Formats: sequence, structure tokens, C-alpha cells
Amino acid sequence: MCLNRGQESAGIVTSNGSSPPTYTTLKGMGLVSTAFKPEDLLKLRYGNLGIGHTRYSTTGMSELQNCQPFVVDTLHGKIAVAHNGELVNAAVLRKKVMRHGVGLSTSSDSELITQLLCLTPPMEEVDTPDWVARIKNLMTEAPTAYSLLIMHKDVIYAVRDPYGNRPLSIGRLVPISKLHSSGGGEGDTEGWVVSSESCSFQSIGAKYYREVQPGEIVQISKHGVKSLNIIPRPEGDPPAFCIFDFCSSSLSHRLCVAGQMVYTVRQRCGRQLAIEAPTDADVVSTVPESATPAALGYAQMSGLPYVEVLCKNRYVGRTFIQPNTRLRQLGVAKKFGALSDNFAGKRVVLIDDSIVRGNTISPIIKLLREAGATEVHIRVASPPIRFPCYMGINIPTKEELIANKPEFEDIANYIGATSVRYLSVEGLVTAVQNSESYVKEQIGSSSKASTKLGHCTACLTGKYPVELEW
Amino acid sequence: MCLNRGQESAGIVTSNGSSPPTYTTLKGMGLVSTAFKPEDLLKLRYGNLGIGHTRYSTTGMSELQNCQPFVVDTLHGKIAVAHNGELVNAAVLRKKVMRHGVGLSTSSDSELITQLLCLTPPMEEVDTPDWVARIKNLMTEAPTAYSLLIMHKDVIYAVRDPYGNRPLSIGRLVPISKLHSSGGGEGDTEGWVVSSESCSFQSIGAKYYREVQPGEIVQISKHGVKSLNIIPRPEGDPPAFCIFDFCSSSLSHRLCVAGQMVYTVRQRCGRQLAIEAPTDADVVSTVPESATPAALGYAQMSGLPYVEVLCKNRYVGRTFIQPNTRLRQLGVAKKFGALSDNFAGKRVVLIDDSIVRGNTISPIIKLLREAGATEVHIRVASPPIRFPCYMGINIPTKEELIANKPEFEDIANYIGATSVRYLSVEGLVTAVQNSESYVKEQIGSSSKASTKLGHCTACLTGKYPVELEW
Amino acid sequence: MCLNRGQESAGIVTSNGSSPPTYTTLKGMGLVSTAFKPEDLLKLRYGNLGIGHTRYSTTGMSELQNCQPFVVDTLHGKIAVAHNGELVNAAVLRKKVMRHGVGLSTSSDSELITQLLCLTPPMEEVDTPDWVARIKNLMTEAPTAYSLLIMHKDVIYAVRDPYGNRPLSIGRLVPISKLHSSGGGEGDTEGWVVSSESCSFQSIGAKYYREVQPGEIVQISKHGVKSLNIIPRPEGDPPAFCIFDFCSSSLSHRLCVAGQMVYTVRQRCGRQLAIEAPTDADVVSTVPESATPAALGYAQMSGLPYVEVLCKNRYVGRTFIQPNTRLRQLGVAKKFGALSDNFAGKRVVLIDDSIVRGNTISPIIKLLREAGATEVHIRVASPPIRFPCYMGINIPTKEELIANKPEFEDIANYIGATSVRYLSVEGLVTAVQNSESYVKEQIGSSSKASTKLGHCTACLTGKYPVELEW
Amino acid sequence: MCLNRGQESAGIVTSNGSSPPTYTTLKGMGLVSTAFKPEDLLKLRYGNLGIGHTRYSTTGMSELQNCQPFVVDTLHGKIAVAHNGELVNAAVLRKKVMRHGVGLSTSSDSELITQLLCLTPPMEEVDTPDWVARIKNLMTEAPTAYSLLIMHKDVIYAVRDPYGNRPLSIGRLVPISKLHSSGGGEGDTEGWVVSSESCSFQSIGAKYYREVQPGEIVQISKHGVKSLNIIPRPEGDPPAFCIFDFCSSSLSHRLCVAGQMVYTVRQRCGRQLAIEAPTDADVVSTVPESATPAALGYAQMSGLPYVEVLCKNRYVGRTFIQPNTRLRQLGVAKKFGALSDNFAGKRVVLIDDSIVRGNTISPIIKLLREAGATEVHIRVASPPIRFPCYMGINIPTKEELIANKPEFEDIANYIGATSVRYLSVEGLVTAVQNSESYVKEQIGSSSKASTKLGHCTACLTGKYPVELEW
Repeated sequence: MCLNRGQESAGIVTSNGSSPPTYTTLKGMGLVSTAFKPEDLLKLRYGNLGIGHTRYSTTGMSELQNCQPFVVDTLHGKIAVAHNGELVNAAVLRKKVMRHGVGLSTSSDSELITQLLCLTPPMEEVDTPDWVARIKNLMTEAPTAYSLLIMHKDVIYAVRDPYGNRPLSIGRLVPISKLHSSGGGEGDTEGWVVSSESCSFQSIGAKYYREVQPGEIVQISKHGVKSLNIIPRPEGDPPAFCIFDFCSSSLSHRLCVAGQMVYTVRQRCGRQLAIEAPTDADVVSTVPESATPAALGYAQMSGLPYVEVLCKNRYVGRTFIQPNTRLRQLGVAKKFGALSDNFAGKRVVLIDDSIVRGNTISPIIKLLREAGATEVHIRVASPPIRFPCYMGINIPTKEELIANKPEFEDIANYIGATSVRYLSVEGLVTAVQNSESYVKEQIGSSSKASTKLGHCTACLTGKYPVELEW
Repeated sequence: MCLNRGQESAGIVTSNGSSPPTYTTLKGMGLVSTAFKPEDLLKLRYGNLGIGHTRYSTTGMSELQNCQPFVVDTLHGKIAVAHNGELVNAAVLRKKVMRHGVGLSTSSDSELITQLLCLTPPMEEVDTPDWVARIKNLMTEAPTAYSLLIMHKDVIYAVRDPYGNRPLSIGRLVPISKLHSSGGGEGDTEGWVVSSESCSFQSIGAKYYREVQPGEIVQISKHGVKSLNIIPRPEGDPPAFCIFDFCSSSLSHRLCVAGQMVYTVRQRCGRQLAIEAPTDADVVSTVPESATPAALGYAQMSGLPYVEVLCKNRYVGRTFIQPNTRLRQLGVAKKFGALSDNFAGKRVVLIDDSIVRGNTISPIIKLLREAGATEVHIRVASPPIRFPCYMGINIPTKEELIANKPEFEDIANYIGATSVRYLSVEGLVTAVQNSESYVKEQIGSSSKASTKLGHCTACLTGKYPVELEW
Repeated sequence: MCLNRGQESAGIVTSNGSSPPTYTTLKGMGLVSTAFKPEDLLKLRYGNLGIGHTRYSTTGMSELQNCQPFVVDTLHGKIAVAHNGELVNAAVLRKKVMRHGVGLSTSSDSELITQLLCLTPPMEEVDTPDWVARIKNLMTEAPTAYSLLIMHKDVIYAVRDPYGNRPLSIGRLVPISKLHSSGGGEGDTEGWVVSSESCSFQSIGAKYYREVQPGEIVQISKHGVKSLNIIPRPEGDPPAFCIFDFCSSSLSHRLCVAGQMVYTVRQRCGRQLAIEAPTDADVVSTVPESATPAALGYAQMSGLPYVEVLCKNRYVGRTFIQPNTRLRQLGVAKKFGALSDNFAGKRVVLIDDSIVRGNTISPIIKLLREAGATEVHIRVASPPIRFPCYMGINIPTKEELIANKPEFEDIANYIGATSVRYLSVEGLVTAVQNSESYVKEQIGSSSKASTKLGHCTACLTGKYPVELEW
Repeated sequence: MCLNRGQESAGIVTSNGSSPPTYTTLKGMGLVSTAFKPEDLLKLRYGNLGIGHTRYSTTGMSELQNCQPFVVDTLHGKIAVAHNGELVNAAVLRKKVMRHGVGLSTSSDSELITQLLCLTPPMEEVDTPDWVARIKNLMTEAPTAYSLLIMHKDVIYAVRDPYGNRPLSIGRLVPISKLHSSGGGEGDTEGWVVSSESCSFQSIGAKYYREVQPGEIVQISKHGVKSLNIIPRPEGDPPAFCIFDFCSSSLSHRLCVAGQMVYTVRQRCGRQLAIEAPTDADVVSTVPESATPAALGYAQMSGLPYVEVLCKNRYVGRTFIQPNTRLRQLGVAKKFGALSDNFAGKRVVLIDDSIVRGNTISPIIKLLREAGATEVHIRVASPPIRFPCYMGINIPTKEELIANKPEFEDIANYIGATSVRYLSVEGLVTAVQNSESYVKEQIGSSSKASTKLGHCTACLTGKYPVELEW
């Protein structure tokens, strides 16, 4: 079971499920591949259930201490908690916990959630700690934005906030012996997996099973998957799934999803953009590699030929050292090469996923013009980001956002483009909903997928799903 | 301010003392020199007060998470706590805290102490958190064995348990410009330091000032050092300073103390041993290097000449890799060389600090015999350890303790010695007390040193300072 | 000046050009970015000429010792030599050198070349060592296959073997102040660069100037670039530039070349393949990312729509640890995701650059079929490799080469494809020559580019450029 | 077989002795324990003979390239060469080799020696390369100062220069099964070892066998040890064993020698010093730890009591980071503690091994005075170093040598001592010769030890064993 949203730190806790259980914990900074050594991972092999977390810091300092899962010892033994998201009313809840006489050792919401679970209802030395009652209470006190994994002894609870702001999917681990005729043997297992990224299922040979619903508590144990409860939203409030997940270049590592959602959404965004912002041009192309689905969508819908105009220069490693100002000043020119054969003397429509600060696209445009492009039209396959997120997505400050320039023409002048257009918020919502319908149709009745999900468009529109407390 | 007892992990927290204060935390595994990088240490430079800790695990897993100081956020801002020792009634106190609805994220006493401080009296949003009342309450609930450093904003509280089991000394940081005629300048500071090892003062140019008394709470701030309170012991209970600290080879890094205590005690232990266990022999020698003061003391009192019989083989690095069984089987033979010129054909008295398992001394005796010693008499400058410690000192299990062999003769046979004798418990106490008187006399009235201190001899006698609860 | 062909080791030698010169040498294992630390690179800053080398071992053990450039001290001061390629008659030449009483400290051709340069004509203590005469003699004794950089004091000689088997291009370093209106300042330099990869020029802001001709010795100094000599081939022998460089996936990092050669050649190979091996299908696609230019070329020429059918799964790091057999057995399935929207129910033409062992393409075909492709036609944009290379290119043994299966049908059956076709050798040569003409036309008269170059097709046809000695 | 003189780099070459042999080479920077990883050492396990080297740079840059053993391929297969020392006529010999058309890839004497061995007599493709004739020729051309190990196929030649300047001892590896009653098994071997440090034999369970004689070539193979030849010195020239080896603190890691030479010599130096420079004082002590044997010798001969006055402060790691000037200015004060009990109110004789720059002893004297010593007499157990060494020992420049101050009184004033005296050169020679006689007597006839060895005292007297060529 894994909440994986980043590459800043990684943590895993396993339980062997016996009574009393043995927990094994691994935590480290960086990607999973660098955070853990092989000998560390071997320690985990005796666990038959576990929760993990990878993190891109939103709140909380970037330190090992803040690394999830958070494990505490309680009157009823250890529980481990991993979460994805950010509690909108964290400040209020921290004060409550501290007033009770609890010292909080980190600034992370994980510890806060864990202590809230211990606090209400009062701990008694009875046989059963009633974690489900505690989780329900938490969901009432903290409406959004989170997905949770809570492990106690031989049970994992998978929890999604009532607004469904953060994704959480269940997958079924298929034995290798069923995937391949050969294979199987030691280490071949059957079981359940839960992840904030359904695309990760494929990597481990699991099949997508279903979404955890907004407000739902799902119990997973050796007896299988069981839905326990759905905590409702305040009456009238629609669900608020974060729509930004479909736009962000920084999440382009999720291109491959079980249901193909992200690739399909982006391709449809490109088609929608071709309808909203047609261009009188000769060729369509992409800023490789994340914008390619949208660019192919734009090309298909517009009827313009798709060509490659940029190729990534493999000489430029991210870790390469730049010993003098010369190389620093070369900047993006050394990162991309212009394939001028494909566009010299032509008018280019260049599709990008999003434009945040404008300092990447500007030298690319210059490069294309110098290599012979007569016009460079920038078409952005997502709406401009204009508002801060308080639900855990990192967004630059207002001053930095290029989309806060008053007019498209100003932006075009600023970055040196012939013209600039963005996808509309309505266009994005349409593309997402059409994709959902399509995917639902493809996957069929085995999925209870989120067709009726509303979306949180706060960062695009300023309309927040809950009233913000400070 | 530093509690330094080991080399397993190290932590430092500094505060800049402003309002609200900024705390900076560093933690790492290993010795201070390996745990922190220079760039890390630079981060600390803006703090003008701080507490640190180095640790040799007694309870709690050997993990970064258990690394002290423990810092928590409270209604009244952050507090940082470092401790040395082990609460004898930790299990009872953990249950109390958990019953209150607190989840404990580590198995360390530091977290337990911190949460106890937050718990009683109840937290209120008043102007002053009254930490002193909280510390008093803690000392009533947890009688022994600990020294504490507690930092809050611009104040540090130095606390020693009512039984005085663990040492805690105050030193005065002298400006370099007063130490040397040249020197001083940037980084030259005046101030106060507190440490569990008074010997560390010298390394940083501080002068020994005084001991924190058993049960005392000392407040240190920019206004200086102020004694706030002494929490008394239950009537009739004597103080119980850990006498083992004067015996352990593993603490031989503390040979250099401000008041010379350890060296002097060991030299006197050697003299006392010569009185208690005289030997008809030709030369006295040492197992280098920790037994040398005792050996020189034995030689002085017995009148036998002191010679070196062993020299350490510098070829044998601790990290040297042993690629085959050959080198492994050579064992201690490759660690020491025999200086046979000094003892061939002679009867040797070999002084050692302590004999725990016997597996180090045995091949040394064999080496000396093969190089020509006609007799090898082992004289141990401390009494045999016979009982477990519940106050935080690591001692092998009863089965492993060679001193549990019934008779000295059996031990001698087991390790191949001509004879074996130990210092008596009374002899040790006498050596320690004489040293204390001597040192007091030397240091004079500027010291309030612990002349009336009783000692905890539990590991030698089985008499524990408090009744053990489980 | 750099010969960069790999990522196994890297070396740099600089000279400050003064008299006597100071040489600075850096060598390390791995990519440049890992082999050198920033502080190492700083050491180089006082050199104003230098030669470097990155290496993928062909002959010689993979050790730091074999790392180029090779520097030796001679009667006339130090010379440094870096080479790319492999001497076909190395064994004969090594024996000659050793018979003269020279011990060879490495198995590398670089040392052999260096000692040959010292040997003939005989060294005399005259004013001038006449390196040009020594280089000429070397080129007579060693006909192919190499490019060389030789540095002595303040001069670099760039040498290409008479058959021109290995590329060597000259570029002109343009001052930043001429590239950007802003910029320049410290570290902004003008000068000449030589590289086996003309594509690297762009990364450092240099402009392509010209090729070193087969058999040519070019002298580069502060006086500029000067052609000294061309050593002719044996009469009748055509030039023999390695054509494999245009096909190999392992060289796909060279997609971006100054003259666009590789991208253009591959796109033309795709077009040529569409002519030679047309397919009755619905969509054309690529095995990302190296086959994309050929796939787009095939799509353009065939008129079939280009779509993406595979996306790379970013979860799979190359360094990820596989703790159990389960993940190992998942294999390529976890590396690629199928974008089934784009091809379900359709006949797919899948373009690949080359098929060596077949063990990568086979599971991809299976993945596409399982995701709904009705037919999967493999079209390979290069001819089958059938013969070993003795000029320094790593090629699997005959047994491993799938192209040694007798019939295309057998290969198709083996890998599970509906059909398999390769580009013909003639098709490849045509694509290369057309590209050369096109590029020549584009670049114009400033280039003396290699229009009349014949090609070495030994690995495809078994026709070697020189008779092989053993 | 190992030449171990330092800790800057380490190299090992093994041969499996078969025909043709397989050589395995390991090289790394730093101590053996850090230079090699366990998996590297495993690679060596198939060799049954090998030579190694550890190095403290004398000539040659501190680089991996200069790391010995030097291995070259010759007409007759590979030879590996390790040397200890420095050729006094290296410059002349380098020119000779380069004039022959050989490029020298390092500045090390090892490569020079290796190429000289290949050069004369001329290489021929005959059955036998006649290495012995080549070694003899080398010894004629290069009179001193070196010991050599030369490995070819299944033979190792151990060579000591005609003047015997550098030590070289042969040891016999005893099977563990003969050392211990238990033990043995896999990896238990019998065989021969050669080392520049006879003390290292003990560490691996080898017994001292004999010295290689000045000018001797010893052949070691599976047939045992065989003396082949002794190349004589020019008539009238005495042998010139480096006497400095017995004095240098930097070689204090060699305290343990098989024949006890160094410890015994130092103890005798202390006795001799007590005769030459008696002191009217109360106690004798040591600067720990290297001066302890001399201090004990001085105490024995003078009849003054031996006490410890300094103890090393274990808090001060060599790698400890000094973040501010404060700690830097504390200097040696933080390295040693004063055991004032042992010397307060007394006159101290402090023995040191050597005083080179005076900047270590000066603060120690200040520390002792501040802690109550009424007088501090420095007695140095070696003569002052006054001249440079051209045979490979690192000695500071004349300007830095405190011994170049005109009078003992000036030195005493400079360092703050009550008085300063050195051992005389004659006293050192006497102490060494007496020790040699004593040791010879002890070891008996099994040793052909170097009783008639003269000594090189060049650094003390300026009398060099050979005329210096430049």
C-alpha cells in the first residue's frame, strides 16, 4: 500500500500481522532507489502487510524526521499512518492537540493525524481500540484534503477524505504464474495493493480494481477488501477532486495509468485546444516529452502535420558541473537541439503543458526562430494557474505566475511568441469528463469509477471546496 | 551544554534566544566527527544557546529517530530535551502517558520525559508555562536515574535526579584572549557550559565550576547560573552516584578530567589492589592503554619495577578486512606484540581494568607465556560485576559474566593465568572516597563537590538505590 | 578537443602552453559528471589548451589505468595522446615496440600509439622533436581505424586515419557576447574545438567548422587551424567511414548533430524503409525514443497516421533494486505502458532502429497484442548485422545475432510478430548519401564535408576495408 | 611480499603462477583498509604469489598513476615491480631511457626501474629473458637507495641495494594449525613472505627468517628461497643502512618488530641519553606514546621515578571539524590533559623522540608549567637532523629545522624549557649497535642479521654514502 507523490523522502513500515505484531521501519531521503540499500529492503521480507510513502514536501521541513509513515505506540500497540495531502484546518487542530498536553515532535500533518486518532474517543484499556470510530471522528474534524493509510497489527484502513480531493485506488496483485506461463515460484504472491497512483500497479504486476470513494473507509486484511463506511460531505457540497493533477508537467511521470486516464485526458486537452484556439500555421509540434500527447491531439483535430522540432541533447546531465559562466549563459540552448529540416521557413504551433514562469519557453522560441521558423505560436494545453492551493500542491507565488500578466498579447511579447493561447477551464473540465466517460465505458461495470466526481479548480478559479479557516 | 556518553548517534539543537526563538537541529549516526558535515555545523552558528547529546544505546533501538535531543512543539513554543540515564520506572510512566491519549513515536526515555513535562500540570494558554513546576513534578514521578538538559526559548534547565546517579557538571567558558596573550577575535566567547563529562571542558577551553547537586534544578540564561530548587530523596535514602563510571574500560576516554578524578581514582585503585592482593613477582605491567594508571599505582605501592610487556600493533586497523579464516584465527596475537626483553624469564603481574568475558585477556596471557614469562598473575583493578544495571549502563547478561565462576582459581584456570585477584568493593569505595577528599582539598572552596555522595554499587553488590517496579 | 564515445571512463589533460608547459591531468571512472568533482575541474582552469576522452571499452580492461589521454615524458617534454577506434594491426605493432625494449604498462592502443611516436624516427637531443614526421610514420604503420588528438606544449595535432573510419570534426568556439546581447564576461572565450561528435559543439556554444579529412594531420595552435598533410590510402582503396554510426541505438544520444545528419539520416531511413517494405496497416508507431525519427519518416512516406502506442513507465529507475523474483519476471512489462486508445482493434506497424538479440522487442509485441493490436508488423530501420567489427565497435557474437536466423519468417515467429522486414544495405547507403548531399547543399561552401566518402559496411556485408592481419 | 612504508596509496599484484600466468592488480589511494573493498580483495584469492606496496610519496605526484607495483608487458610476458627508496641518480637514468625512445608515463622510480630492466641487455625472442642479468645491470647503474620486489610468472626476486640503505626481511608463513591446536582449514597456508618491515610478519602469523643482505638478489619460488648473487659496493665503501628509521616518530607504528629492534633501540637510546645528559630532577616522563620506551630507559638508568604527566584527550578526533577560531586557537591544549597530581611542585624531565619544528613541544611545556611543574627539562632521544635526505626520507627544509638554531640554550628559550639536550650521533650509533648485538645473541645462529652494517647518518652528519650526481 503506497502513497507516492514525490522524490524527497521515502518510508516503509511492514507488519508481520502476528499477535503481538513485529513492525519493521525503513526511512531515507531521496528516491526509493537511493533512500534504501538492498540489505535494508531485505529486512522487510518477513512482513506480509505494510504501508509506504514517498514525499515531495508541501508543509513541514524537508527532514528525515518528517518522513512518513508516522508510527506511534499506543495503549493498543503500534499504529502506522501515511497520508497524502494537506489538512486545510491543520493550525486549528494542532492547537487542540497541544492544549491536551501533547508535544508535537514534527510539523507534519501525519503526526497530527496520528495524535488525533489517539485522542478521541478517550483511550481505555479495553480489548478493542475501535480505530474505525476514531477515523470517523478524524474525518469529521478534518474535512479535506487527504488520503490515508492506517496500519494496526494485521489490518490496513484506506481512507479518502469526504471531498475526494486526493486519489486512492485499490489494485489486485496477480500471481506471476497467472501472468506468464513460465515464472512464479518464490516471492510470487497474491494480495491487495492501495496507491495514490493507480499507474504504479502495472509496474508490480497488479490489476486495477477500484477507487476508494470520497469519504470511504476501506478495511484490508487477510479476509479481503471490505467497505466499512462513507462519511458524507456537508449537504450541498460537491466532490472536489484536484483537477490540477491532469495538467502538471511535474506529474508527467504518471503518463501511464491503468485506465490510461492521464494520456487520454492530455490528448483530449490538445484536441479541445485545437477547437478553442485554432492557428493558421504549417506544422504542429511539442516541447518534449510531456507535451507530446497534447501536441498529437492538436495535430489530429487541426489536420496540421505533426513533426518534431526539438530534440533533447543527451550530453546535458542534470548533475553536470558548470565551472564557468560561459556554460551557464548558454542555458537552454545546450539542452535542446533544433531539427531545422522539419520547420525551416514554416509557421510552427508549439504545444506546451503549462507555462509557469516563462523562463523555459522563451529561449526555446528564440532557438526556433534562429533556426528558421517564420512564426511560433504557443498553445498551452491547460488553463492559467492564478490562485494558491491550500490542499497540498506546490504552486509559485502570485508574483511569479506569468499568467497574472493582464493580456495574452503581453505574455506573447514577454516570451517572444507570435501568439499565445491557453485552454479554458471549461475546456479542461470537458476534456476530463469526456475521458472519464470514455474510460468508464471501456472498463465497464467492474469499475465504480468516479463519474459523478466534481473537481477542485481552486488554483484556476479561486473557488475553494471548503471555507478556509486560519 | 552536552550529555556525551557514547558514539552511536549525536544530536545538537540550538536556539537564538529571540522571541519567538529559532531552533536549529542537527542529528546524525556515529561520532560527532562523522555524524555532521562542516556545512551542517555552520548552520548552528547563529544560536547562542544550545543542547547536545551523544549516545550509546541503552534502551531504544539504534535508530536516528531515537537520537536526542527530543524537540516538541507545545502551546508555549518548542522545548528541547536531552537526557543521560534510564528511568527505572519507565514502563509505568509510558502507560500513564498513553492512557492520556498520547501516541509515543519512539522507545526512548527522552520522548517520555518530554511528554510528561507537557502533561502535568495541565497546559493552559497563559503567559507562562511554568516549566520549573513541570520539572519538579517529573522528578517526583521519576526518582532516578538521569541527568537532564531542557531548553526553552532563552533558558536552559540543568537537572540531576534526586539520587545523583548520573554526573552533571557546570563549566565556565573562558575567552581565549584571557587564556593566551595572542588570540581571541571572532568566535571568542564567554559563557556557561554543562556536561555529563567534566573532562570535556578542557577541550573547549572551559574551566570547571561546580557539580549540579543531586535533585537540583539549575537555570542557565544570559543572567547567569541560578540554583532554583533541590528535590529531596525519600527520607533515609542515601545518594547513589554510579561507582561503575570509575571502573569501566569503555569509559577510558574520560581519563582526562578537569579535577583529575578518574586518573587519580584508578591510580589509587592500583595502590589499593597492591595492598589487598600483593604478589611475589618480578615486574608489574599493564594491558595498554586503559589499565596503565592502575598498573603504575600498583608498581608504586608494591615497589616492583614497572615495565611495558605489550605494544599495540598499529598495523591492525579496526576497519581492516579479514578476507580469510587465517587472519581471523590469528586473533589477538596480531593486535599486540610481546616486548620480551622486558620480561623473558620473569614473573609478571599484569594489571587490567576489568575482566568481563575473559576472551581478551586469555590470548594475551598465552602470548606472554610463549614469549618467556614464567608466571602471569592477573590483578583486576575493579570488583567483579555480578548484577544487572537498570539505570542505563550496558552490562552483559549473567551467563556471560566470567565473575560468576565460583572461585578465583576457576577463573585463573579458565584464562590460563597463574593467579587472579580482584579489587574488593570496599577497596573501590575507599579509593574513590580518598580521591574525592584529595581532589576537594586541591580544588578548595571554589568547589561544592560531592564529598558526601554515597555510591550506587548495584552492579557489584545487588543493592539497588530504589525498589524496582516493573 | 574531445574524443567522446562512451561512459565508462573520462580523462582530461590541459596545458598552459608556456615554456616549459604545465600539464594538468584528471581521470575518473564513469560519466564526466560522476568521474570529476567540481573542485577537480577547477584545477583545469589555468590551461588554455587541452584534450579529453570518454571511453566505452572495446579492447583493454575496464580500468582507470587504461583511461585516456595517455601522457608520457619524452626527451622533448610531455606529450598527451587520446584516440578513438582500434588499431587493426595492434598485435603486430605491440610486438615491435616490446622488441625494442619497451615495457607496455597497459593493454590500450593509446599507449601503443604513444610509444610508436617516441620510437621512430630515433629520438635525438635536438631542438625539435618533429612530431609531424612521427605522426606520418605512425599513419603508414597503422592504416586504420582511429582518430587521434596529440598535444605537445602549445600545439594540438588532430589526426584521422587514411581510411577515415572514425569521424573527427573541427568547431569554432564563439564568444557568448556574440551569441547573446547580454552575457560574456569572465570565462567567455574564443577558440577552436575538435570532437569525434560534432553534435557536442552546440552544447558548448561552438559552431561546426569542418571535418578533418581521411589521412589528414591538422595542427591547431594560437595561430589557428592549419592543414599539414594528407597521408594517402593504398592505391585503389576507397574511404571507409563506419556506416554503423548512423544505425546504432546505443549512439542515439547523438541525435542532435550540428548538421542534423543523424536525425535526417534516420528519418530518411524510415522513408526508404516505407518504400522497400510497405505494409497494409492502420497506424505507424515507434519504440520510444530512439526509433521516433524513422517512424515519423515511415509515416510521412506511407501516408499512414502516426500515433504513440507505448509510453515509458517513469517508475522504473535503472538503479531500482529488485528484491524478489516477482519483479524480475515482470520484465519489460513494467518498463512500458500500452496506450491502447490509440491502437486497440488496429493493425500496427512498429518501427525499431535495430534488432540485435530480440529479447526486448518480443515482450513489447506481446504487450501490444494483449492490449488489442490485431497485427504487429516490425519494420527495422537498419540492415541486419551479420559480421564482427575489428575497428572498435562492440557487436555481439554471431551466435547471439538474431539476424543470423535464416528467414524473416523465422524471426517473426521467434519474436511473435505478424511480419518482420529490415532496411537493405543499399537502402541505408542511399539514405546516408542523400542526407549528405542535402546537408552539403544546406551548409554550402563553408563545408568541405565528406561527399565522396565511401563507407565501411563490414559488419553488414563482411567486406573489410583492409586485409586483416593477426 | 610487501614494501610498506606509508599510507598514501596501496597496490597489490598477484600471479597464479601458471603458464601463461594470470596477474590480478588492485590499486587505491589511502591506507590498505580504505583503498580496497572486501569484494576487491576477494579477486586476489586465486593468486599464490604476489607483491604489494604502500606508499608515502617522496618523489612523484600523489596520484593513483604513481601507485606501485608497476606492471608492464614485455616480450617475455608481464613483470611487476615494487620498490622502496629513491634512486640517487634518477635524473641521469631517466634521460638515458628517454633517449632510447621510451616515453615515461609517470614520475616514479618504479617505472624507471622497470624500463631499465627491459632495456639492458637487449630484448630477444629467446626462451629465457634472463631477469637476473638485467637486475645485476640495474644494480650497477643505480647504486642506492632501494629495496625491490620483482615478480615474473612464478618467481619473485627480492633485491636490496649494494649499500643496504633500505631494510628487506624474509619471513616464513607458519600454518595456523601449527600455531594453535585448533584452527587451520581453508585459507591456512605455508610459504614465504618478504617485507621492508619485519614487524609486519607477526600480524599475519609469519616468523622472521633473515635479512636480505646489501647487494643481494634472492629468488623466491615454489622451490623455496635461494640466494643468487651479491653485487659488491665500490671498494672501500661501507654499508649505509638508514639510521633515521630508528628515530622517526612518524615510524612509531613499527614499534613492534619481530626482533624487537625498534623498541629495544629506543629504550637503549633513553639509557644512553641518561648517561650523556643527566638531569637534577624529580620525575621522568614521556610525550605519549612514541617516546615511552626512551622515557622508561632514561628512568631506569637515571634512577628517577617514571610517572605519567600527560594524557591524551580522546575527545579530539583528527577529523573533528573546527568551526571557529576559538577551537583552533586552543591548539594542543585540547589534545593533552595534565595529570598534575604526578608532578605539581616537582622538576620534570620530559623525554621526546625528536623535535623538528618545536611547535608541538612548546605548548606542552606551557601546559606542564601552568599545572605546577617547577622545571621542565627536555631530553631528546635522537640527534638533531641537520641535512636533507636524497634517499627517500621526507625531511623538512633547513629553514624549518629547529636544530639549526645555534645553541641548545637558544632552543630552550624558544620553546620555553628549563634546558634542552639531544642524544649525540655517537650515542645513537652505540645504542643501535648494542641492540644489534643483543638481538643477534638472542636470535642466535638462525639469523644472518646485519651485525657488520654501517649506517647512513647523512641527515645527521651530512656525510652521504655515495657522491651525489645531479
